[in-house]
Amino acid sequence: MAKFNTSCPSGFPEWTPAQERVAQKWIATIRDVFEKNGFMPITTPLVEREENLLSKGGNPKEMYVLKRILDEEGDSSHSGNALRFDHTVPLALYVARHFNELSFPFRRYAIGPVLRGERAQKGRFRQFDQCDIDVVGSENLSLKNDAMVAAVIIQIFERLMPEQKFIVRINNRKILTGIANFLNISSQKFLEIWDHREKVTGEEFNKKLNELVPSGKKEKFREICDFAITQKKNPNVWHSSDWENWFDVHKTFGMLNKESAEGAEELITVCRILRNDLGISPKQFEPDFSIARGLDYYTGTVYETHLVGYESLGSICSGGRYDDLAEVFTGKKLPGVGISIGLTRLLSQLFEAKLIDVDRSSPSEILIVSASEKAEKECLALSSQIRSWGYPVENYLEDKKLAKQFDYANKLGIPYVIVVGEDELNKKCVQLKNMKIGDQEEISRDTLQAVLEKKL
Amino acid sequence: MAKFNTSCPSGFPEWTPAQERVAQKWIATIRDVFEKNGFMPITTPLVEREENLLSKGGNPKEMYVLKRILDEEGDSSHSGNALRFDHTVPLALYVARHFNELSFPFRRYAIGPVLRGERAQKGRFRQFDQCDIDVVGSENLSLKNDAMVAAVIIQIFERLMPEQKFIVRINNRKILTGIANFLNISSQKFLEIWDHREKVTGEEFNKKLNELVPSGKKEKFREICDFAITQKKNPNVWHSSDWENWFDVHKTFGMLNKESAEGAEELITVCRILRNDLGISPKQFEPDFSIARGLDYYTGTVYETHLVGYESLGSICSGGRYDDLAEVFTGKKLPGVGISIGLTRLLSQLFEAKLIDVDRSSPSEILIVSASEKAEKECLALSSQIRSWGYPVENYLEDKKLAKQFDYANKLGIPYVIVVGEDELNKKCVQLKNMKIGDQEEISRDTLQAVLEKKL
Repeated sequence: MAKFNTSCPSGFPEWTPAQERVAQKWIATIRDVFEKNGFMPITTPLVEREENLLSKGGNPKEMYVLKRILDEEGDSSHSGNALRFDHTVPLALYVARHFNELSFPFRRYAIGPVLRGERAQKGRFRQFDQCDIDVVGSENLSLKNDAMVAAVIIQIFERLMPEQKFIVRINNRKILTGIANFLNISSQKFLEIWDHREKVTGEEFNKKLNELVPSGKKEKFREICDFAITQKKNPNVWHSSDWENWFDVHKTFGMLNKESAEGAEELITVCRILRNDLGISPKQFEPDFSIARGLDYYTGTVYETHLVGYESLGSICSGGRYDDLAEVFTGKKLPGVGISIGLTRLLSQLFEAKLIDVDRSSPSEILIVSASEKAEKECLALSSQIRSWGYPVENYLEDKKLAKQFDYANKLGIPYVIVVGEDELNKKCVQLKNMKIGDQEEISRDTLQAVLEKKL
Repeated sequence: MAKFNTSCPSGFPEWTPAQERVAQKWIATIRDVFEKNGFMPITTPLVEREENLLSKGGNPKEMYVLKRILDEEGDSSHSGNALRFDHTVPLALYVARHFNELSFPFRRYAIGPVLRGERAQKGRFRQFDQCDIDVVGSENLSLKNDAMVAAVIIQIFERLMPEQKFIVRINNRKILTGIANFLNISSQKFLEIWDHREKVTGEEFNKKLNELVPSGKKEKFREICDFAITQKKNPNVWHSSDWENWFDVHKTFGMLNKESAEGAEELITVCRILRNDLGISPKQFEPDFSIARGLDYYTGTVYETHLVGYESLGSICSGGRYDDLAEVFTGKKLPGVGISIGLTRLLSQLFEAKLIDVDRSSPSEILIVSASEKAEKECLALSSQIRSWGYPVENYLEDKKLAKQFDYANKLGIPYVIVVGEDELNKKCVQLKNMKIGDQEEISRDTLQAVLEKKL
């Protein structure tokens, strides 16, 4: 036999069936919340033109292009194509392709794999599923959408992890770029350092920024940092019922410049809608001036989401507001706001932290086992009947010892086994075995549906 | 503005949101039927090692390999990888990777895209979704699985197209290879001609086979063809309640050789289990000796599925039994039986034939519209409430005229619009407009949930 290396290519992992069952349930829940909020499903191709992907921020180091092993002469239609690395550039292309058919605001969701030629390392995948929503406006897009999108994040994690506390942290980029402008330093440089604030010690952070801040503005900058850090250390001040502290935001940022004031105003508005209009508990979100979302293309609201007690996992759902989705393709102003859940990365972290139960591989609730050749026909008919009642069920069809068949159910996590032998045929009953507690009951065929309804 | 060609690359189409909604519903139904029958979800990577894909029947002309635009020195981990072209080779690799963790029979399903560098032509896609199930045994696999798998096809199309008649046509490869052996002609050549029987005229077919058939066997072969064609022309003889005609199969094929007799016996057994044990109506399946499934790797049962009245669409779900899933990777005998639905191709045909309704883009059942600035807050709270009742709902949040907002609902196919203005605020009611019939009712907030429950 020739030797093949059958392992997954580096960076392209796969789940076990039990993990995949969780992933599928999460996708179904995420999809349901997206649709409950009126987002339309879009599935764009995995493959787009290379120059289009590169023109909207694609990193050529990470981009996979497609070649055929054997290219036929005269068929150039395969060349110049590459794999999508996110859902945002394909969204821009989708809007460009279908601009005249679309109704704005255009609310779409996308769930599916994206591919990046990353360096292989723990927690970095080269193929991973992303779950995105975006609302795209034509010319304008109301700030209320920024609050609605945050509310969607909250609906999702309330349903995915009902026992787990999480918090959506919201900031506004204009506050940060306003600070950078006030300090006369490059906003990109400022955002980079600001974004890494939690990854370095306070000393390092101060040192880095101090080097950048002009001497005449050091005192004012210290005040801003104090305010931002006080808020960070004591998020409760933000949730005081008299909203008093909201004025401090204006006091602190409003006097810097118009941009900062506008950012503060927007942030306050988004938080007010969430709390006052959408009735969302202040425990589920907080303004947080440390959020910057790195070097992304955001221009206003930015979001991160953190699991309380598991902050080291990083943000599990992020996004923000942008001014320009697709001007390069459409020549039109298309502002939008969106979020993305990096599902593969998130689940792999949750599986590793054992925050999710993954002990059941099979969807079957019942395995039907025949204890005698004469009962085989009855067992097949019984599975059709139980399936028609709505339960996932399978027959063990191979000629193996009973112990082996029970073992099969155990290994796959199938909770119940039904055994039918000649005795049961004669008595019109089945043996119903609970695989977890080992308990076995004789159930008459007449009452089987009622019994299953109770147990499943 | 630079000019970009933003169209989809050739062979990589995308659905409209309304079509995508249908595709998602179909996938959910297919997934549910697969799981109701105890199949476990597996998602293998899009990317596998090129040599593994080639070793199990990959066509190098159709295979896409991955390159990075810029390859970093010393990082060779990206090279030698290619995109999967089906779900069967990845299944073989999955079984090889996880052999010791698996319980046999291993029942898995896979739903997702595969990629082939086909020549671009109508109805041929380079990326398309396939939905597969397979049951894989270790050393042996009971023939009963062949019947169960046919029953899954029937469950799927009963749910997907309840109004549409369809038929699963079943044959057994051993019958055909037995005929070829009896005639002393290459079974590959025979299968090829047999498979194209319906694509050529009877004359052409006869001429082609006559050339191959040795003169001493022409009479017997004529008898076989007559039998196969009679059966084909009058499928009802197969469904006579006295099963009389089943003996003709043995009479016709059993006397050719052991292989044909075995194929006939297996085919009869599969059909008997379907009809007698699983209680499936004989209108939903038929033995059909013309089915060959081209040059695939099947060795026993083969299936095709046809929509009655739309036979020109070809088979909408096909598959069969194979002896060897992964011997090249595992050195072990792993027989299996499986089917595949080419979802993208099937749906594109059904959309084109207008067999499926695709007039609704948005999942939203209700669009909430504020007729006054004062009502905006109430409108946001109302959408949270309606969503908590389980209905998909969205707010129109932009500052546009009412007519424009109604137009938005119309274009997306949202069936109801709720309008709240100052009047409605004061009277604690809403205006509920049915967008299809144009009818508008005033509904008190107290009774809104009950009214929606009736209408939605």
